[in-house]
Amino acid sequence: MREATGRSMNRIITIGREFGSGGREVGKRLSEALGIAYYDREIVEEIAKRTQLAEEYVHQIVEHQPKLQYPITIGHTLHAGGSDYLLRQQAAVFAEQATVLREMAEKSDCVIVGRCADYILRESAPLRLFVYADMEARMARCREKAPEAEELTDRQLRRRIREVDRHRARYYTYYTGKTWGARENYDLAINTTSISPKEAAEMLLHLLR
Amino acid sequence: MREATGRSMNRIITIGREFGSGGREVGKRLSEALGIAYYDREIVEEIAKRTQLAEEYVHQIVEHQPKLQYPITIGHTLHAGGSDYLLRQQAAVFAEQATVLREMAEKSDCVIVGRCADYILRESAPLRLFVYADMEARMARCREKAPEAEELTDRQLRRRIREVDRHRARYYTYYTGKTWGARENYDLAINTTSISPKEAAEMLLHLLR
Repeated sequence: MREATGRSMNRIITIGREFGSGGREVGKRLSEALGIAYYDREIVEEIAKRTQLAEEYVHQIVEHQPKLQYPITIGHTLHAGGSDYLLRQQAAVFAEQATVLREMAEKSDCVIVGRCADYILRESAPLRLFVYADMEARMARCREKAPEAEELTDRQLRRRIREVDRHRARYYTYYTGKTWGARENYDLAINTTSISPKEAAEMLLHLLR
Repeated sequence: MREATGRSMNRIITIGREFGSGGREVGKRLSEALGIAYYDREIVEEIAKRTQLAEEYVHQIVEHQPKLQYPITIGHTLHAGGSDYLLRQQAAVFAEQATVLREMAEKSDCVIVGRCADYILRESAPLRLFVYADMEARMARCREKAPEAEELTDRQLRRRIREVDRHRARYYTYYTGKTWGARENYDLAINTTSISPKEAAEMLLHLLR
């Protein structure tokens, strides 16, 4: 951790993205070309889990507690409580991930895909990108990327894409109070309907160099 | 006019913009740096007016009519008819401007600010930009640019900015059936809250070269 005297001056790039828009690929390509760290949902969740596991472990030893008091991640099956419990747990997971993001952003330059990073890291003045595309283009990209999408009809795939985005929008609004994808929350929004994620990344690299 | 056999392959850049975002300046700078034509509302209206005036003139001579049948531009005071008349007149003006835009886009590379050019020229596959900024930044830019804004209170200026944008949104939706500023209608949306129109133009030039 750095001294608390100054804000991180690292280059932080956050990417919000519609499902199937290739935003994740854009982020990976940017991080590779710039030679900086890359974090997405899976990575952030994994780090948060490990951090919390480690803390729980220390806690157990210190307190001599034989059993964890509550499940560690939202991935686990709940073994207690109602919706209030669930909300508290989700808030705890979000807070843990936010801490991880802030630590990562303090450590080095990085690209972060998703996780409301644009909002969580707002005081580090990240470059906030949003990647999106028309439904047709996103369906085509999904079919290309994921063999399991082959079994879905167009209608099912369209519904699935909308579902994922609805979830993202809700998650974003819940934790930020803002509208996911609304232009005021981003510095640059880029449409990947007619260009590939590779081309989008190349365009962005021109801006960033 | 070119042969009707092929679509124009000119580079067409259209810019939608929130009032006070500096989108017009971005457009002018792009056109100057690229050495291509620049059209905005005033220019398009002027050309449309001249074209129509010329056509009316020819019409009068051919038909030996002593008097124009209806006012030429929406700028004129109406001397006839109700709202139906107004709507027909507005539609005629829009159609005339659309013709002008298509001719300009066929003639040479160009930057076009406003006038639903992104929609009108959609078959020429223009690069469709949208420029926007936070209200505070737009108010500051208005005060900087227009001495007459000095007389307005912050509240009046804010109201004025919202009014202009509401008008733009209505105009856009009326003629395109789409939502003004909605990301799906643009290839790139750029936020000028923290960067100047000059910087935005420089960024975009990187993309375009």
